Amino acid sequence: MAVGMKAVIDLGSNSVRLVVYQQGPHGTQHEVEDLKQTVRLSSHLTPKNKITDRGIALTVQVIHEFKRLCDAYGVTEVIGVATQAVRMAVNQAELLDRIRKETGIAFRVLSGAEEAYYGYLAVVNTVPLDEAVMVDVGGGSTEITYFRNRVMVQQISIPFGAVSLTRRFLRTDPPSQKDVNKLERAIRKQLDACEWLKGLRCPVVGVGGTARTIARIHQRRRHYPLGIIHGYEMWPTEVTAILDMLRSTPPEKRSEINGLSDDRADIIVAGAVMLDQVLQRVEASRLVISNKGLRDGILMEQILQHRGESVLSDMLGYSLENNLRRFQSSQRRSGHVWHLTQRLYAALVEQGWWTDDAEVWRWLRVAALLQDLGRAISIYNTSKHTFYLILQVSLFGISHRDRVLAAAIAAYKTSKRTQALLANYQEFLEEEDLLAISKAGVLLGLVRSLDRTGMGNVRDLHLIPAQGAWKLCLDVERPLGVELDASSKWLKKWRKVFQKEIRLEVNPHERAKDV
Amino acid sequence: MAVGMKAVIDLGSNSVRLVVYQQGPHGTQHEVEDLKQTVRLSSHLTPKNKITDRGIALTVQVIHEFKRLCDAYGVTEVIGVATQAVRMAVNQAELLDRIRKETGIAFRVLSGAEEAYYGYLAVVNTVPLDEAVMVDVGGGSTEITYFRNRVMVQQISIPFGAVSLTRRFLRTDPPSQKDVNKLERAIRKQLDACEWLKGLRCPVVGVGGTARTIARIHQRRRHYPLGIIHGYEMWPTEVTAILDMLRSTPPEKRSEINGLSDDRADIIVAGAVMLDQVLQRVEASRLVISNKGLRDGILMEQILQHRGESVLSDMLGYSLENNLRRFQSSQRRSGHVWHLTQRLYAALVEQGWWTDDAEVWRWLRVAALLQDLGRAISIYNTSKHTFYLILQVSLFGISHRDRVLAAAIAAYKTSKRTQALLANYQEFLEEEDLLAISKAGVLLGLVRSLDRTGMGNVRDLHLIPAQGAWKLCLDVERPLGVELDASSKWLKKWRKVFQKEIRLEVNPHERAKDV
Repeated sequence: MAVGMKAVIDLGSNSVRLVVYQQGPHGTQHEVEDLKQTVRLSSHLTPKNKITDRGIALTVQVIHEFKRLCDAYGVTEVIGVATQAVRMAVNQAELLDRIRKETGIAFRVLSGAEEAYYGYLAVVNTVPLDEAVMVDVGGGSTEITYFRNRVMVQQISIPFGAVSLTRRFLRTDPPSQKDVNKLERAIRKQLDACEWLKGLRCPVVGVGGTARTIARIHQRRRHYPLGIIHGYEMWPTEVTAILDMLRSTPPEKRSEINGLSDDRADIIVAGAVMLDQVLQRVEASRLVISNKGLRDGILMEQILQHRGESVLSDMLGYSLENNLRRFQSSQRRSGHVWHLTQRLYAALVEQGWWTDDAEVWRWLRVAALLQDLGRAISIYNTSKHTFYLILQVSLFGISHRDRVLAAAIAAYKTSKRTQALLANYQEFLEEEDLLAISKAGVLLGLVRSLDRTGMGNVRDLHLIPAQGAWKLCLDVERPLGVELDASSKWLKKWRKVFQKEIRLEVNPHERAKDV
Repeated sequence: MAVGMKAVIDLGSNSVRLVVYQQGPHGTQHEVEDLKQTVRLSSHLTPKNKITDRGIALTVQVIHEFKRLCDAYGVTEVIGVATQAVRMAVNQAELLDRIRKETGIAFRVLSGAEEAYYGYLAVVNTVPLDEAVMVDVGGGSTEITYFRNRVMVQQISIPFGAVSLTRRFLRTDPPSQKDVNKLERAIRKQLDACEWLKGLRCPVVGVGGTARTIARIHQRRRHYPLGIIHGYEMWPTEVTAILDMLRSTPPEKRSEINGLSDDRADIIVAGAVMLDQVLQRVEASRLVISNKGLRDGILMEQILQHRGESVLSDMLGYSLENNLRRFQSSQRRSGHVWHLTQRLYAALVEQGWWTDDAEVWRWLRVAALLQDLGRAISIYNTSKHTFYLILQVSLFGISHRDRVLAAAIAAYKTSKRTQALLANYQEFLEEEDLLAISKAGVLLGLVRSLDRTGMGNVRDLHLIPAQGAWKLCLDVERPLGVELDASSKWLKKWRKVFQKEIRLEVNPHERAKDV
């Protein structure tokens, strides 16, 4: 898979979006640009489904502009896809020909099933759920997909989205109760067509602008301390509450709603009704937001091909790798710290001094691999920067709570400082967490100090239970210096946190020269 | 000046330090590694100033280790310098020969005057003071320098530092009042030798570990919201208060002092007494901390040579350039935003709608040039990341207050959000600041939206006063699209903040195609 810049342009019924990805080796990638222009193509369809001349001209102009931007980024491959509005347009060919002629980009018109599939690919590889219903409320259509054991088993594309439903049903703004009732009935009728949806009682994953907007409004209202949308969870009743608030807010007041952008204010009610109806039909246990959708699914297809997997077997590992590359953090170095961390935790578990806990393993993995991320900001106050970055960067397969815990472990210095760092994140914490953070933080801190030079001088370690103090035997590459200096304060912290002394023993052949 | 990795190893009387710099074009640079090993070379001097065999062996071992690390970083030039302990050692040659033979690094022994000069170079190019006394309390010597109009006019090297003073005067820990009195008298006698120091009443710049430690203790005690040491200011009486606290704390309690590291706990009192005595002798107006010292001065000498300047004429500009390179932010792009920002602010000033304010210019400059820095973290929540980075990265020539204001302007979205962002930074703010931030934030936001694609489509702009609404005439490269979309919300904010409507007018030849 080529290393370099790649772009996806998604010609939707509400907006045209451009995402530019920087691709690294092994299918790693990160977004460097995300631009949207609200063209409302579905509003430029005549009753006979012909895109007007103005609609064509506007669309071509936007794509032209995006193409120029791609050139400026040095993009070598632009993938163009079109969805519902183009799908149903009788003069589809005319539009696509003009685009190809003027920009050189050959757009592919996705079927509803393909659109659903790409959304599924994005979600199943970035949201850690084995079973869920996915719903993507677009401008002109809504894709609903059901996957179990991470395999897509059902899908339907409903030819109505936030823009078209608004145009068809909501004649006033705010809409009358009567119109909303009619809209709800129409959606229910559409949903009746998929018997499989009813009462699945699994989580629903919300994809696309409608779900993101509802989540953002919800986050702002409760002053959610993390700015992350991906993986955010809501109760279905909370969605209904926000819908009720939205439909009763007159348009001139709607711009004051924190989290709602101007270009979505007029279509959000219809979109929210759709989402709400799906949640009800599924009797969903919760709504999980995915920031990844169609565009990411298109790239993901290539990544999976390259990696020879049908779904990512380790989405967390993949996203950790993405971040190590993105922040030019040494994979060898962080991998070695993670290796030593595992060895030490496993030894403590084996000796019965710590319980074997999947959560702790996960936190330690993220913390150990990303422990050095903060150096990308500065080598001063690095642990503070690492804390910030672990809370902010794109990570898949872990919860927001996991992030907070992993960030605190990676940044651990003292329990007092940890409490200060976590002051705004109390809602994520449980009672025993502070002790777990201290133990894991000291463990990781000690291991990091043993690789302070990043040269892997400590090849391996093993813990030996002993009367009084534990012995930590180090298998070293060459005499230690900086490492011993750096580890001394962690040995003191160890005693405090584990209530047990630990002593380093360098293997006899390579003991530090006795000078 | 070669682009690549460069290192400075500073063989001091208390510790050996390694700093590795990544060098970019035009003398830009940033640190990628900073390692210290506390060897206490001055403790390995016999009464006849001979370094013991053990002292030599320890030193060689540490430098060997640092050399290996330099190799791992791909360092192409290692500059080694030695100070007081080596300077006074009768077997200096023996030590340096062994180092050269075993590591290939030819260490240069700096005279006291050279040491002072390099410290001066570091400070005068990173701290925005025209006149100051600099004091660098080392392990074995103390360098005091006086510069006026940014030119070094006096300097003295006192052959006593924190380690040697402790050894010689402080026989107990905590020290007796009698010993401290004796120490103070000895220092005063040394200071008597420089008549020029007395009553200068200028700021004192504190360089080195003693000053940094005192600042860090002070910051922790008052919960200072910024983690930055460089440019931190203290009143002389605050230094005295911390000295009093330190000398009355028994050693076993000293490790609990937040900000004081274990390897400095036993020598901090002597160092603090030296600093305090200098502050008193100068009758200093304040103490300003410099995180930059000897090592940075050595690199700075090369940078200045390369740039053909005796001191940096624009230290802020230099540090902004460093950061743009470090975070791979486009200089062309940010430079263009700064150009348009200046044009618009100047026009507002010219029309009498805003006052010409050097502070506002400075904030706007930092905010405009670093506006995109947050993209280095993520293209989502970018403004939040930009806020964080402007508060954290290495910037010279501006105060901590300037940083806070510039960060708030760069991240501006609404005044409500600004207040939330600034909640922890109230101590830096004055009454009118929120209005200034809103105005500058909206101005920058509008300009940024006009270059949303980063392609410089808006070449230039000029403001035309008009009845009712102002006109902002745009000289464009090609039809605008994304830019107009992005600017519409800023035009609304403009009206709210400036209480005056503003309308865009695209120059007629290049008006967006009327489709």
